[in-house]
Amino acid sequence: MTSKDWRIGVAGLGTVGAGLLTFLSERPGFAPAGGRVSVTGVSARSRSRPRPFDISNLPWFDDPVALATSPDVDIFVELVGGSDGPAKAAVEAALNAGKPVVTANKALIAEHGAELAALAEAKGAPLLFEAAVMGGVPAVKMVREALVGDDIRSIAGILNGTCNFILTEMEATGRSFGDVLAEAQRLGYAEADPTMDVGGFDAAHKISILAALAFGCAPNYAAAEIEGIDQVDLLDIKLARDLGYRVKLVASADRSPDGVLVRVHPSLAPLNHPLAQAGGALNALFIEGARIGRIFVQGPGAGAGPTAAAVAADIADVMTGAVRPVFQAPASSLSPFTPVDPSKSVGRAYLRFMVKDEPGVIAAVSETLAEAGVSIESFLQKPVENTEGVPIVLTTHAVAESVLMAAVERIAGLSSVLERPRLLRIARI
Amino acid sequence: MTSKDWRIGVAGLGTVGAGLLTFLSERPGFAPAGGRVSVTGVSARSRSRPRPFDISNLPWFDDPVALATSPDVDIFVELVGGSDGPAKAAVEAALNAGKPVVTANKALIAEHGAELAALAEAKGAPLLFEAAVMGGVPAVKMVREALVGDDIRSIAGILNGTCNFILTEMEATGRSFGDVLAEAQRLGYAEADPTMDVGGFDAAHKISILAALAFGCAPNYAAAEIEGIDQVDLLDIKLARDLGYRVKLVASADRSPDGVLVRVHPSLAPLNHPLAQAGGALNALFIEGARIGRIFVQGPGAGAGPTAAAVAADIADVMTGAVRPVFQAPASSLSPFTPVDPSKSVGRAYLRFMVKDEPGVIAAVSETLAEAGVSIESFLQKPVENTEGVPIVLTTHAVAESVLMAAVERIAGLSSVLERPRLLRIARI
Repeated sequence: MTSKDWRIGVAGLGTVGAGLLTFLSERPGFAPAGGRVSVTGVSARSRSRPRPFDISNLPWFDDPVALATSPDVDIFVELVGGSDGPAKAAVEAALNAGKPVVTANKALIAEHGAELAALAEAKGAPLLFEAAVMGGVPAVKMVREALVGDDIRSIAGILNGTCNFILTEMEATGRSFGDVLAEAQRLGYAEADPTMDVGGFDAAHKISILAALAFGCAPNYAAAEIEGIDQVDLLDIKLARDLGYRVKLVASADRSPDGVLVRVHPSLAPLNHPLAQAGGALNALFIEGARIGRIFVQGPGAGAGPTAAAVAADIADVMTGAVRPVFQAPASSLSPFTPVDPSKSVGRAYLRFMVKDEPGVIAAVSETLAEAGVSIESFLQKPVENTEGVPIVLTTHAVAESVLMAAVERIAGLSSVLERPRLLRIARI
Repeated sequence: MTSKDWRIGVAGLGTVGAGLLTFLSERPGFAPAGGRVSVTGVSARSRSRPRPFDISNLPWFDDPVALATSPDVDIFVELVGGSDGPAKAAVEAALNAGKPVVTANKALIAEHGAELAALAEAKGAPLLFEAAVMGGVPAVKMVREALVGDDIRSIAGILNGTCNFILTEMEATGRSFGDVLAEAQRLGYAEADPTMDVGGFDAAHKISILAALAFGCAPNYAAAEIEGIDQVDLLDIKLARDLGYRVKLVASADRSPDGVLVRVHPSLAPLNHPLAQAGGALNALFIEGARIGRIFVQGPGAGAGPTAAAVAADIADVMTGAVRPVFQAPASSLSPFTPVDPSKSVGRAYLRFMVKDEPGVIAAVSETLAEAGVSIESFLQKPVENTEGVPIVLTTHAVAESVLMAAVERIAGLSSVLERPRLLRIARI
């Protein structure tokens, strides 16, 4: 490839878009094989909205599709967001025109990655999305390129900074989920509609992308089992801590001969474990492979600087002219992974029961568990103020999820049990 | 690039070479853009030596240079080792013939990287060396490609697994450096001649390579300040622990307006710090950038599996046809970094003095430090069995290295001080 100039079109001018424009204006010569980079078109919902970066000198496009297909654009950068609508239309238009696409859009890749990969490869246009997962931490590059020489078995980590911030604050300050969420929204760490983050959907998008890269499958977001942190009770954070654990929103993907299990759950990590120690808005990831052993990586998972740096790295990657599949395997051979039935998965769990403070309750609970075949690992009964009834908490030995769920249902039906039992998984890390 | 077949020549058939041959035989179809991979030539010092992989069916070359230039080889893999001699001759021959080179040779790249990069770029042949640093952890790829969108300020970490194993074992078992080294040699974790590892030279090669990638300079191994672990005393490991620290061999590269400081030193890391918690043969690395914040990565830094996986990833990278500079900047613009005078660097330190058990000694030591301008942060005097004299240990506040050294010299000259003071730096992490 000869040294050439590269003309970038940027659709979406929020935090990341402004960060990218700032970066490109500061380092116009960062093209790895030489040449210079210039922004030759921008598009956003509003042209006049105040922004940290002056766009008045940049060619404006009302329609991101027009920007994506402009003859003045060599690389199209999509920072609009959303799995469908203008983001998808513009990415498809750019790929159809044979233009390389760089996107930070996890929903788009997780939900439409296979068809977009097929289009990109048919047109010979790279489709890169480093910024979609873990912000500035190069998780996508690591899995797609660096670990191509391995058979990856499992991936597990903290992929949503907003949830990690909220859980960290709940534990540190003793405030409820609702209180901390409201503060995070005031500080701009959480969206006005926080559902994507706190519902676990954002983490599920990200782990679906990593699973596809790691296992050579198409992303299969529809198969992900998703539970957010909106039901996490401060009481469980405290009691888990008494048992030596910290509650984290863990996203995981495990491959077995039966298929792939992709899940997002509030889960318990031992206090001395690196995942438990990744506090605040940090993201953290374990990757385990047959040859490579276990690799751990941690860093800021969001924010203008890290995310814009990831987008810039993808732009640089396009400039190298590298030709590789969008996922691990060519799109023509990608198929959605076979989901493993979660009820057959085996793991340890944390259970909390609120019970009447009367004789025989512990016996009733523990007998019910024993009859169901659930073996108790640790047990804690502790007086807690301001609660109706008394909490009994316990951790189990490894047990099939179907067995555990049946036991929980039976205990929920006991007359001495006051509310729905709470179940948190203990992370397999 | 069309799907094509790739013919690999492998020189050097030790642990990593055998691991690579195993990998390539197990996954011949791993080429990212399609095609198949086959080994079309091997070379090593001895053809008949017993190996875990049968080479009798592979074309044999007595001379690695002949293998490197064979018309039957598309990619030359150099696993011979050593900064000069046959490794360098074969790599130069391959590049001169326009053939892509993949190497795990940290000494070669650290000491001759700039000239090899110039040759590689002149011939349009990739020169890749992921396996040279941190084994299967993609540190090279992260710094060269993923963080190209950032200004990296500093890199610090544990880059030699042998030293980390020895230090971990010394602390865990209370045995001396010599005892643990002998065991590591028996187990195959340390070479018969352990100088490269325990002298800090291997870690210095690796940090010199990372510094070049991060800061856009030529590798400048000659400018690295190097201290190994062979002088680390078990007593200091114990006393540091009493003060809340763990002794690690830390390699670091810091960029400032004055230049770059590359150092390898046994250093103290706080017990709750991720570097302190990376035990055994693990490697670990912090990368700090202006935009990206701090990224931490940890994993197995050596071994046949991880290292062969890294070589395979580089082979896959060659197949993508990516064109980029060998280091961060084109070879034509590479110059060695300006080394910062270490005596001007400012940091905290741990000092141990063995003193006569007599009145006035603490006063004499502390007065000497105060007069020299060294401010004490913490102080510990503790009776220790089986030592001549009494150890006084202390940590200092941040102080210029020249000031600290002058103070140490003056204390060494006090009549009540029995042996050379021991100095360990506190890692700036």
